[in-house]
Amino acid sequence: MRETVDFLLLYWLGIPELVDRSRFSEHSLGSFGQALDTCEQIAREKFRPFNRLVDAEEPRIEGDSMVHPEATREAWDAYAASGLLAASQDYEDGGMQLPFVVETAGNAFFLKGSVGLCTGPSTAGVARVITAHGSARQKLAFSTHLLTGKFAGTLCLGEPQADAGWGDIETRAWPDGDGHGADPLGARHRLLGLKTWVCAGDHELNDNIVHLVLAKIPGADGRTGPGAKDVSLFVVPKKLIGPDGQPSGERNDVVLDGLAHKCGWRGTTTARLHLGDGRHLPHGKPGAVGYLVGEAGHGLAYVSQMLREARIGAGLAAAMLGMAGFEASLAYARVACQGLHARAPGRPDWTPQVPLIELADVKRMLLAQKAYSEGALALQLRCARLIDDVGTGAPATAREARALLEVLVPVAKSWPGEWCLEANSLAIQVFGSAGYTREFPVEQHWRDNRLNMIHHGTHGAHGLELLGDKVLMDDGDCLTVLLDHMERTAVRALDHPGLRGHSADLAHAAGQLRGATRASWSTGEPDETLANATPYLQAVGHVVLAWIWLDVLCCVEENAADLSPEFIGGKRSCARYFFRFELPKIGAWLGVVTERESVCRLMRNDWY
Amino acid sequence: MRETVDFLLLYWLGIPELVDRSRFSEHSLGSFGQALDTCEQIAREKFRPFNRLVDAEEPRIEGDSMVHPEATREAWDAYAASGLLAASQDYEDGGMQLPFVVETAGNAFFLKGSVGLCTGPSTAGVARVITAHGSARQKLAFSTHLLTGKFAGTLCLGEPQADAGWGDIETRAWPDGDGHGADPLGARHRLLGLKTWVCAGDHELNDNIVHLVLAKIPGADGRTGPGAKDVSLFVVPKKLIGPDGQPSGERNDVVLDGLAHKCGWRGTTTARLHLGDGRHLPHGKPGAVGYLVGEAGHGLAYVSQMLREARIGAGLAAAMLGMAGFEASLAYARVACQGLHARAPGRPDWTPQVPLIELADVKRMLLAQKAYSEGALALQLRCARLIDDVGTGAPATAREARALLEVLVPVAKSWPGEWCLEANSLAIQVFGSAGYTREFPVEQHWRDNRLNMIHHGTHGAHGLELLGDKVLMDDGDCLTVLLDHMERTAVRALDHPGLRGHSADLAHAAGQLRGATRASWSTGEPDETLANATPYLQAVGHVVLAWIWLDVLCCVEENAADLSPEFIGGKRSCARYFFRFELPKIGAWLGVVTERESVCRLMRNDWY
Repeated sequence: MRETVDFLLLYWLGIPELVDRSRFSEHSLGSFGQALDTCEQIAREKFRPFNRLVDAEEPRIEGDSMVHPEATREAWDAYAASGLLAASQDYEDGGMQLPFVVETAGNAFFLKGSVGLCTGPSTAGVARVITAHGSARQKLAFSTHLLTGKFAGTLCLGEPQADAGWGDIETRAWPDGDGHGADPLGARHRLLGLKTWVCAGDHELNDNIVHLVLAKIPGADGRTGPGAKDVSLFVVPKKLIGPDGQPSGERNDVVLDGLAHKCGWRGTTTARLHLGDGRHLPHGKPGAVGYLVGEAGHGLAYVSQMLREARIGAGLAAAMLGMAGFEASLAYARVACQGLHARAPGRPDWTPQVPLIELADVKRMLLAQKAYSEGALALQLRCARLIDDVGTGAPATAREARALLEVLVPVAKSWPGEWCLEANSLAIQVFGSAGYTREFPVEQHWRDNRLNMIHHGTHGAHGLELLGDKVLMDDGDCLTVLLDHMERTAVRALDHPGLRGHSADLAHAAGQLRGATRASWSTGEPDETLANATPYLQAVGHVVLAWIWLDVLCCVEENAADLSPEFIGGKRSCARYFFRFELPKIGAWLGVVTERESVCRLMRNDWY
Repeated sequence: MRETVDFLLLYWLGIPELVDRSRFSEHSLGSFGQALDTCEQIAREKFRPFNRLVDAEEPRIEGDSMVHPEATREAWDAYAASGLLAASQDYEDGGMQLPFVVETAGNAFFLKGSVGLCTGPSTAGVARVITAHGSARQKLAFSTHLLTGKFAGTLCLGEPQADAGWGDIETRAWPDGDGHGADPLGARHRLLGLKTWVCAGDHELNDNIVHLVLAKIPGADGRTGPGAKDVSLFVVPKKLIGPDGQPSGERNDVVLDGLAHKCGWRGTTTARLHLGDGRHLPHGKPGAVGYLVGEAGHGLAYVSQMLREARIGAGLAAAMLGMAGFEASLAYARVACQGLHARAPGRPDWTPQVPLIELADVKRMLLAQKAYSEGALALQLRCARLIDDVGTGAPATAREARALLEVLVPVAKSWPGEWCLEANSLAIQVFGSAGYTREFPVEQHWRDNRLNMIHHGTHGAHGLELLGDKVLMDDGDCLTVLLDHMERTAVRALDHPGLRGHSADLAHAAGQLRGATRASWSTGEPDETLANATPYLQAVGHVVLAWIWLDVLCCVEENAADLSPEFIGGKRSCARYFFRFELPKIGAWLGVVTERESVCRLMRNDWY
């Protein structure tokens, strides 16, 4: 994988250009490479060897404590030591001012090593929110220690009745007495509520846990405003902070209320947390102590950037699970003989067995995995690079990057969750019966990956967002920017005689997408359009990936002199696989979109 | 589900006709219904409530014993008490002479209740092999007790180096001394070998275990013939049979050598068995004692009928896992509010939450599950009915049934394993985060179902068999019979104005299939053709299911007066869903088949 990452960064994503930007001027290609070397090594030594262990020895509650395997703490410490928690933060905040795309590439190695052990990125995200929107004292008391890994961070967003609709949040925050506004850590509130699906919600791996909590502040009449625009953001430490700015040892009233027993991704606990449980009385009073971040009512705005990055992170996790399964099944196919996989008819059953990798159908399953997971990796890195452009690009570049991200992020979040899960299923299939056992790693990749279609917004939610919102934004400008990029790639491909067929296919697919989008909205009835938002999301995803593959392949052809024939052969085959086997699938998805097919939305409850 | 099963049997599959056949003349629709009532009740009381338990408390080895939850024994006893082990056997052998299609429908309820507890069908299959091909004494000593559930049966086919290619079998059987041919239980041999993936391979749930073992008998020169045609079949009891025909208590040398720790389907152990391990010396001599069944060298022929039934059984298991997930997610969607599933854009986030089932995308996910699992159930029952026709139909009927089965069984085995697995994934998705936890049943269905694409022949193997063998057989006659049936259904549908679009779509799809089959073989180079055998299998599967759905729907329309509007509405919607969302997918699969796309088969090892 490293060879592909290096190629994508250096050639395809033009990382050398970034060094010219003032924010990154103290960096060099060498320092980027060293950062990746470190990540790769730590992932190999501290993550991957313990991936099965943390699945088998699922963290559990014993008395008042969470018990993790020792490997979990060691992985955390090693991740913190890599510096990646502070990678893209400012120097003055203790950060490394690395481009986000380099941080993302670094995280790819950890995620491939063990997705369940890779809780660092969400702590880094919490730190970024506090850095960006918190007060100087909040940064000092919380961010500083998050960036070194002394504290861990969590996001407490969902609730039993509000898994994703933040307007439905029922956690309440009341001003904590008369002097509450004068607390140096920020306006002090008392919180009551139940937060669900909190990743790494409670443990003893760190000196403290910093919870970022969404809650509503009731007005003088005791009522809250409607919907998400009344949601505020609070920082709620597990242990209270003393006057010296250090954890005082006194427990805040944030109580672990139970764990989800997941199908996979078991190395990371998923907790239900009770705020204001009553088990603790911080400062002698009931309710969990929380400090307002920024201004009241801006909670969602403050976390939106982080949620966008988390979506790219979820897509990256899915891509890396796909890559891990690909690498495992490839290694197996090179040494194992055919066993479960039948000889082709006409090949006598007493002829010698051949290695799996010589069977055409196994080649297909390996090539599909490579095309899915390398394509998804390229897409995530592209998105990360666009985030760098938003932050440090020239105004026109930043504006275009922002528009592209609007339509790409729903795809970057969703597509790998669906297709790299399929890659993991193919990895099992390459192994045959052996792949279905816990004696090999691929069934765990598959279980782990199933989460990615659910968390950080379901497929359905991203489909609604894409077709119901993003493609309409700014008079459809975001989609136009994307389609223009596809057209540019199609034109660029015409320079390479071998890519002309792909060029025509991409141009045709982009046209189908444009037409289907228009047709789907032609009646102006959102219910008719949005009933097929998920097939639309699937189709956009496949067209985007075809674009990514053709764009990558153009770059390969243009730099062929620097690349090995094997590398070139692999990339050409992936692109061809994608254009021949995958892209034609969009016909079925766009068909129902175009026709505003109604069979699902008209289905009646009593007909099932 | 019962309403659908009854409809399929009574109306669509013409079960009333079967009562007119002499073999079933003592039966009536009432006795069939009672048999199903019994199965449904036992499955509800003894299987379904323990499905999670047998997943969590995976059977394990303690000392010399296998430890199962008590529920496993109770489920076995209840299954045996249902009489289903002997359902389709002759009266004179202690059977019930039920049609195979009724037995299959009965098993559907058990499989839906708990696939891991449902080991009865394979014991019934072992009994059928011995009844059909064994001697009278073998029937008495083994089949009789298998049919009552006193003994359990296993199939010992695969080996570490021969998971599916029976020609690669290395288990050897040597004649056991001079008088070996005079043993009343059959020609006595001593077996040495290692058998893998033996379902329910060892346990203490029954008085004895009857292993059916494939092995080769070396000639006088110590060598065996090449390939599968030299394979013989042996019956190898776990405990030896005494002169009185009862288990003597002395252990045969069949030793449990380890268990596979599976991703799912954990209620049933998957064992590695060592024949001639040396731990036991039956009758004072080394080697496992086994008795030849029928004639040497006919082993594969003797098990082929049972393997065909087992393939239909595997498809049925996949279908019933799909159905179980559908029912669970439907029940959840009716009571749970939207939670994780976002409101559509334009619907303010303070509007009240609605039950999941009112969301268009949830409706889609439920309808897809219903279309997949009910369609697969119909296909399996159709195949079972064809097996009844082979056995008891008039000569022309039997001949046609045999031809149809040749091409349908690879689909019946494969299609549900792929698409009812997808149904299970959609069930998880309907639940959202909750579906990813072991607190709800759907993640287990999904894990359990992943086995079905692997065992009883992989997807790849069935694709090779279908495109490389079945469609060529008898000058393509089997495929022609299938396509003729599709055409007849398309014509029949023309009588119903609402079905004309479906009729045209099916006729067109059948034509595409015929054309792609011809194009794929047009160069006469098997390597070129068979490189895309799996996409071909996928396409045939989707066309077959479209045919099944249209045929079922014609029958619904023709009997609408007897059916409820809800039932009719559900079936119409399923068919429409299938024709609009699913059937168009064949374009992408048949494209590579038609073009004999070469990217996979030309992929080189060092390009990955």
